[in-house]
Formats: sequence, structure tokens, C-alpha cells
Amino acid sequence: MTMLVMGHMNPDTDSIVSAIAYADLASKTGNAAKAVAQGAVTPESDFVLKRFGLAAPEVVTEVAGQKLALVDTSEKTQLPADLDKAELLAIVDHHKLGDVTTPNPLEIWVWPVGCTCTVLKSMYDFYGVEIPKGIAGAMLCAILSDTVMFKSVTCTDADKKACEALAKIAGEGDMMALGMEMFKVKSAVDGTPMRDLVFRDYKDFDMGGNGVGIGQLEVVDLDILKPYVDDLYAEITKLKQEKGHHTIILMLTDIMKEGTEMLYVSDDASVFKKAFGLDAGERSFWFQGCMSRKKQVVPDFQAKAFV
Amino acid sequence: MTMLVMGHMNPDTDSIVSAIAYADLASKTGNAAKAVAQGAVTPESDFVLKRFGLAAPEVVTEVAGQKLALVDTSEKTQLPADLDKAELLAIVDHHKLGDVTTPNPLEIWVWPVGCTCTVLKSMYDFYGVEIPKGIAGAMLCAILSDTVMFKSVTCTDADKKACEALAKIAGEGDMMALGMEMFKVKSAVDGTPMRDLVFRDYKDFDMGGNGVGIGQLEVVDLDILKPYVDDLYAEITKLKQEKGHHTIILMLTDIMKEGTEMLYVSDDASVFKKAFGLDAGERSFWFQGCMSRKKQVVPDFQAKAFV
Repeated sequence: MTMLVMGHMNPDTDSIVSAIAYADLASKTGNAAKAVAQGAVTPESDFVLKRFGLAAPEVVTEVAGQKLALVDTSEKTQLPADLDKAELLAIVDHHKLGDVTTPNPLEIWVWPVGCTCTVLKSMYDFYGVEIPKGIAGAMLCAILSDTVMFKSVTCTDADKKACEALAKIAGEGDMMALGMEMFKVKSAVDGTPMRDLVFRDYKDFDMGGNGVGIGQLEVVDLDILKPYVDDLYAEITKLKQEKGHHTIILMLTDIMKEGTEMLYVSDDASVFKKAFGLDAGERSFWFQGCMSRKKQVVPDFQAKAFV
Repeated sequence: MTMLVMGHMNPDTDSIVSAIAYADLASKTGNAAKAVAQGAVTPESDFVLKRFGLAAPEVVTEVAGQKLALVDTSEKTQLPADLDKAELLAIVDHHKLGDVTTPNPLEIWVWPVGCTCTVLKSMYDFYGVEIPKGIAGAMLCAILSDTVMFKSVTCTDADKKACEALAKIAGEGDMMALGMEMFKVKSAVDGTPMRDLVFRDYKDFDMGGNGVGIGQLEVVDLDILKPYVDDLYAEITKLKQEKGHHTIILMLTDIMKEGTEMLYVSDDASVFKKAFGLDAGERSFWFQGCMSRKKQVVPDFQAKAFV
């Protein structure tokens, strides 16, 4: 049976490209595999896939009875509801260890690096499999995206080294120009429904029994988003009601200023003081230096907000 | 702060040697680390450590405030009660993925192979670090022990390849003779308190809310255990009451016959029919071909016993 390789809900470029890369690697090492995704690709991923001649993974949201590999997540809240009815064979990730458990031993590669594709670059090397040119280019873009072109605090030397090697394989002479081109696509918001913007890179968490949703929009200049902030606020207010969450945060990250405007709705705005030591404004506050949901928002919020 | 490297409760040879090996590897790649253990070593481990000139790890059962790496387990029930107050930096394992979760990204290497030391052999290679001769010999023994000299269904080609390479490094010309010597030590029961025998390789599991304890004694000939079966039965009956468990199984595994006498106490003996399709006798039954708790007992018991 062909193994499905799947990233998290609301897939970002790393989830899409990691699924494609791991499906390629698994197939070439004896496990027939196919990349899938839990939703349509973002404009950024669409740009990356077209640039390197790759097809978007088929959308799959039910996995009961399937052989399954996870990339870029191990959190049940970010996976299909029928996950427990699938046979989980592998996890490749760079996030905190989630709540997925298995009845059987499996293969897990999880490293504290900036991007799942950095782990996959090492796995290709480990198994002695050559990375196809197009996949290498897409992996390069995934790492540039996840590390915000090496500016994120999640970025490690391993990510930079992987990018250098992948750029060579892909024949990309100027990776920073490629990155800027990609981030301009990512920054575009004109004509996009508000719900799609909120969900562009959005994740739900269970923090001590409290539902918390955190989305992130990364732009090359926050002014791009100014005309939309009222509508985005209305949208997360609606979403909070639908989900019955305690808090929803939409991180509006300015890549160039290296900081984030934290737009929020919450049952109790004092959680932000507890978590980050910052006074929450009426509906948003500036978080200087904050670029990474995974490293600068989720851990402190999980550990301190609900104590 | 020195990172502690720790295996599961009632440490077997793999837990002891993996902790020593990973502490060595971590220290040589920039993270000062020290092997510890949650209890005293078994006679088998004692034989292995002495044979290769290694010291037994210090016993540590509290980890609050410590930096921590786990080897050979990711199950909270097999770890200190204050685990959540430690900072978990790495997991190296070959078991099913347990219920440990973390607030931060970390390094995880978990492969579906016969022994954690097999994963560690690849990690040494991956990081380009030479394995010290004594540690290589002990790792060889750990793999021979966990795979029951390659007879266990958990044994993979990767385990055999690792053993060949480790035997060369350790200068061990006849690894099977070494293995038999080790298993004879492991088979010795004379003068050992019954509680120690039950706990020699014992693990607790939470299976859908039911407490289940499973121990295993591996001997080169089941006749060695015949004089002790009544006392072992009395001991697990007492242990079941103390723990309030639904079921306790003590696997009496005959390495040469390649099967296991399943000695048990249970609130409901029909669980064995459901899990393994075997009729449970009054207090034990023969399970032909069963050598591995991890692969042939835990998965079926977890999936089918309490349905």
C-alpha cells in the first residue's frame, strides 16, 4: 500500500515541500509513497512549486486505514480527526514533540532546526540518495521561508549549510534574491478573503485545557496590512466564537523591521503580560524582535499564560 | 549545566549502555553530558560493564531543573515523576512513540530497529565521532541482548550491520560466544529475591485507563526457572495488588526454544484470547515464537485486549 506523506493543517511551504521530498526519499529507499496535503497551497507555495516545476500535492483529509508519514508536525490538533485509525510509520519534524503516540515502533527524525527540509537534506545524505534538482530548489525556498531568510531566531547553522548545498544542486546562484521574490508573493494580500489571510499560516493549540489559535502573516512591510487590520480583527473575533477558544492571536510580522504586531481577541488580556511581559493594547501590541511563533510565542504562552 | 542522559526505569543493558554512549557523543559534539540510571544495573549489565571497563551510571531519580536527554524510552510511566520540570533536549529510542511532550523543539532520533544502540552507532557516524573501544563493545552487547542474538522479531538488518562494525572496533572476534556468555549471566537466578527477578526487565503501561505491568525474564533454558514459578506467581500477585493494576504478565522467555511461558494475574483472563488468540491457562500459557515484549506483546495487548 502506498504510504501517504502529510504535513499540518493550513499547510505552509515547509509542510508542502517536506511532504514532496520525503515521499521522494521514501519511494527511492523502498517504501512507495505519495505526498498529500490537508488543504490547498498558499500563494507562496504556489510560487515555489511553479518555479521548480513541481505539482501541488493532492488534498487528503481522511487517513483511516492508510499507511502514513507525518512531516512538519506531531500535534493531533493539526492532523486529521481519524489519525488514530492510520498506521503511522514515520515523523520528520523540527517542532516541539506533540501528543501523537503510536502502538508500534516507527522512524522519527526531529531536530531543533529552522525547517523540516533541513532535516530532510540530512536524511537524503544519510541514505545516500541524490536530491532531484527541482525538489532541491523547493527545499531551499522552504528553509528561506521558515527562517525568514535566516533572520528568525529559529535559524541554525545547519539551516544555512543546507541552503548552500541545496542552492548548488538547484543551480540557484542568488538565493537571497529568490527569497525576496518569494516573500513579495507572500506579502500580497489584495483580493484575498480575510478568512484565507487568517488561515494562511494558522495553528490551534490546547494549552492546559484552553483553546488557543495562533496565525501569522509575514510581510516585507507592515504598511501593506494597515488597510486590512479592522477586517482581520473582525475575522479573528468571529473565528474565536466559532471555535470557542480562550484566545486567538494573529501575528502580523514585519520581516524588515524584525518585529510583530500582535493582533488578538482573548477572554483575558492579562495572559500577554504573564507570557511576554508586555502590556496588551485594546486589540493589539508591538512585540519587538518577535519573528517566530514556534520559538518566541508558543513556548512562553504555553508555560506562563495560564498559570 | 551538564545534561543528564537517562534510560527507563528498571534499566536493561540497552538503557545503561545507550546512556553511556549518548553522554559520550553529546560531550564530544559540544554538550557536556553525564550518563545516569534510574536504578542499579542488572547482573547482565554488570557483566557487560566490567567486561569493557566501564563504570555503572550514578543512580538518579529526580530530574527537576535539570537538562535531560532520554534514551530507550519516551513513556512518562517509565520516567521520573518530576519529568515535566526538567528541560528535555533529546530523545534517542527504538520503541513506539510514548506520551512525552515538550514545550520546545528538541533532537529526536527514533528508528524501528532492535536496539537504541543501533541508532547511536549511526549517530556517531553521522556526527563523525569515533566510538571508544570499550563503549563499542558494550553497545555490541546491548544489541545482542535486545535482539536475543538476532533471534527476536525486532531484529533488523541495521542491527546486524551495527554489530559487525562494533565488533571490529571492540576487537571482538566471536560475537556469538560473547553473547552466549552474557545470556548465561542473564539466566542465573539462584539467590536472587523474587521481586528483583520480576523487576529485572519490567515496565508499566497505561492501556486505555487500565494499568498493565509486563516483565520479562530471558533464559537459555526454561527449566532453570521451574523451581521458582510458584514464588514468581505469588510475587506478581502481590505486585498487582500494590499497583492496583488490571493485569500483570511475567514473560518467561526460552531463548533456545524461541517461545515464552506467559505467567499472569489479571482481573479478566479473557484479555489474552482477545489480544493473542490464545487460551489462558489458570495462571500461565505457552506463546510459541514470542520473544519480544515490544513487538509481539505490547501492540496487540494495547490494541485488542480492552476493546
